[in-house]
Amino acid sequence: MNNPAEIKKTNIILFSGDYDKAMAAYILANGAAAYDHEVTIFHTFWGLNALRKDEPIAIKKGFLEKMFGKMMPRGADKMGLSKMNFAGMGPKMIKNVIKKHNAVPLPELIEMAKEMDVKLVACTMTMDLLGLQKEELMEDIEYAGVAAYLGDAEDGRVNLFI
Amino acid sequence: MNNPAEIKKTNIILFSGDYDKAMAAYILANGAAAYDHEVTIFHTFWGLNALRKDEPIAIKKGFLEKMFGKMMPRGADKMGLSKMNFAGMGPKMIKNVIKKHNAVPLPELIEMAKEMDVKLVACTMTMDLLGLQKEELMEDIEYAGVAAYLGDAEDGRVNLFI
Amino acid sequence: MNNPAEIKKTNIILFSGDYDKAMAAYILANGAAAYDHEVTIFHTFWGLNALRKDEPIAIKKGFLEKMFGKMMPRGADKMGLSKMNFAGMGPKMIKNVIKKHNAVPLPELIEMAKEMDVKLVACTMTMDLLGLQKEELMEDIEYAGVAAYLGDAEDGRVNLFI
Repeated sequence: MNNPAEIKKTNIILFSGDYDKAMAAYILANGAAAYDHEVTIFHTFWGLNALRKDEPIAIKKGFLEKMFGKMMPRGADKMGLSKMNFAGMGPKMIKNVIKKHNAVPLPELIEMAKEMDVKLVACTMTMDLLGLQKEELMEDIEYAGVAAYLGDAEDGRVNLFI
Repeated sequence: MNNPAEIKKTNIILFSGDYDKAMAAYILANGAAAYDHEVTIFHTFWGLNALRKDEPIAIKKGFLEKMFGKMMPRGADKMGLSKMNFAGMGPKMIKNVIKKHNAVPLPELIEMAKEMDVKLVACTMTMDLLGLQKEELMEDIEYAGVAAYLGDAEDGRVNLFI
Repeated sequence: MNNPAEIKKTNIILFSGDYDKAMAAYILANGAAAYDHEVTIFHTFWGLNALRKDEPIAIKKGFLEKMFGKMMPRGADKMGLSKMNFAGMGPKMIKNVIKKHNAVPLPELIEMAKEMDVKLVACTMTMDLLGLQKEELMEDIEYAGVAAYLGDAEDGRVNLFI
């Protein structure tokens, strides 16, 4: 129905590793996908943690990379809040209100995004920097660098850095 | 004077509950309004606190909602800084330099925004999540969800997530 | 080769004073410049610290301005991380992995940006607020306010707030 010139694009850089900010990113992404936007979430720096598998993966790493890997949360469900984290109490409270109000928790928002063909991209440069390897990240995602992001973003209607 | 195609739109998502970030959002919004942009600030998550009335409002709430309500700042003037908050010393310093340099403090920036017809929107989904009710927020604001934001943003010249 | 209508613009507001966020801003800016975008980084609030000279500059200041000046990092190399700062351990780790992976540290990213004609702008309003004076900031930068930012941004293909 659309010709290519009419396709609306939304491009979100998810830099943050906070549960609440990642929720906002995925809610916006899924909303835009529902309105027929072509949507990409480009995960860079701490935002890569949203894509991590939740089990530890046996992989050979250098000392620094091992330390980063241990200190960073393994997957969406383990991420903290940007505000009122209270040593992990905040995320529990948020998850409780999410359940109580029938809202959708982050790991399911990510699954929904995949089902709606939101393109989930892991930034290869920062994967390298933080010592994250493909085996540690979920399936069905793409790998790209800043050039690919810019290629998408320069035609984007809605470009956000979260 | 303008036909609809020429109206420039600026759409800011205010996710942050920090005094300094909210200042930046409102300074940008008021600037854009002064240059004839149609401006919307969509307040979501902790950004909703900028819209709270500063007195406590008697309302029936569940336990979690009551806790969030108590822990979050009541209104713009009570918000902390994103950097160098120093248990509240930072905001006092900022407010002192604002006064000294004849800059405009956040509560007045919000009043100015209203006078310039900046559309202030509260995100209903995150109000629900954080247990905030309309009675607790200031007058003259609108209520909407992510679909309304996307409708504005897809025609936006300047879209920012703060 | 391009007519003016075809020049693509990228405008980044760097609000954050975090090493990692500033890295992201400069990597995006340098990438966009490499793809022939006209790129501006508008440094406001804590983002101004990326432009500070690293030596102390003798200048007459009021008490509050002096305190801000002492508490804020002097230049890109002294900035902390947004996550896992660990009282300065985090930045050391990041700098080590940057070196190990032959990535580019922030001060060199800033030099590269200048060489690629990325326009580095310091927000005069927040300089005033934080008591920063031109003598304290690096050479080859421009000074402007929110109106100049909006003039650039309303024609921007990629506008980000970092």
